[in-house]
Amino acid sequence: MYVILVYDMDKRRVGKMLKLCRQYLNWIQNSVFEGAITEVKLKELIAEAKLMMDEETDSLIIFKSREEHWLEKEVVGREKNELDNLL
Amino acid sequence: MYVILVYDMDKRRVGKMLKLCRQYLNWIQNSVFEGAITEVKLKELIAEAKLMMDEETDSLIIFKSREEHWLEKEVVGREKNELDNLL
Repeated sequence: MYVILVYDMDKRRVGKMLKLCRQYLNWIQNSVFEGAITEVKLKELIAEAKLMMDEETDSLIIFKSREEHWLEKEVVGREKNELDNLL
Repeated sequence: MYVILVYDMDKRRVGKMLKLCRQYLNWIQNSVFEGAITEVKLKELIAEAKLMMDEETDSLIIFKSREEHWLEKEVVGREKNELDNLL
């Protein structure tokens, strides 16, 4: 399965969430991740995310696609990966 | 065509970008939009976005899917639409 994950968290929790998501997916922009992941691993990621979220105010959205080639990506402007490698 | 659009812009330009994207797509989270759009309209949106972006520092990523049902969406926590209607 191929997923795009986006989150909108309170500043106090955003660092933890970034760290968690980077364990499972590729960081491609500010609060956006993508990558191939199994159903089991995705459930694990969501369960861990829920533990650190305030579900009243924070938001996590996951778009799932069965096949990566069903999604075409177009990037305008800066590409995150150059930066990501430095962190 | 169905798209997910995410941007990461300098604070000074973020309001303009939000306004532009809301003319074409549905706002679902902080800097994330989704919706059905034609190829022509998407080109128009990207051209207008480029005019206001600094392509060295700002980033705009668009994921395109030919069919909406190829993408399944899961939301954890707050849903933006409640808020969006108030703005």
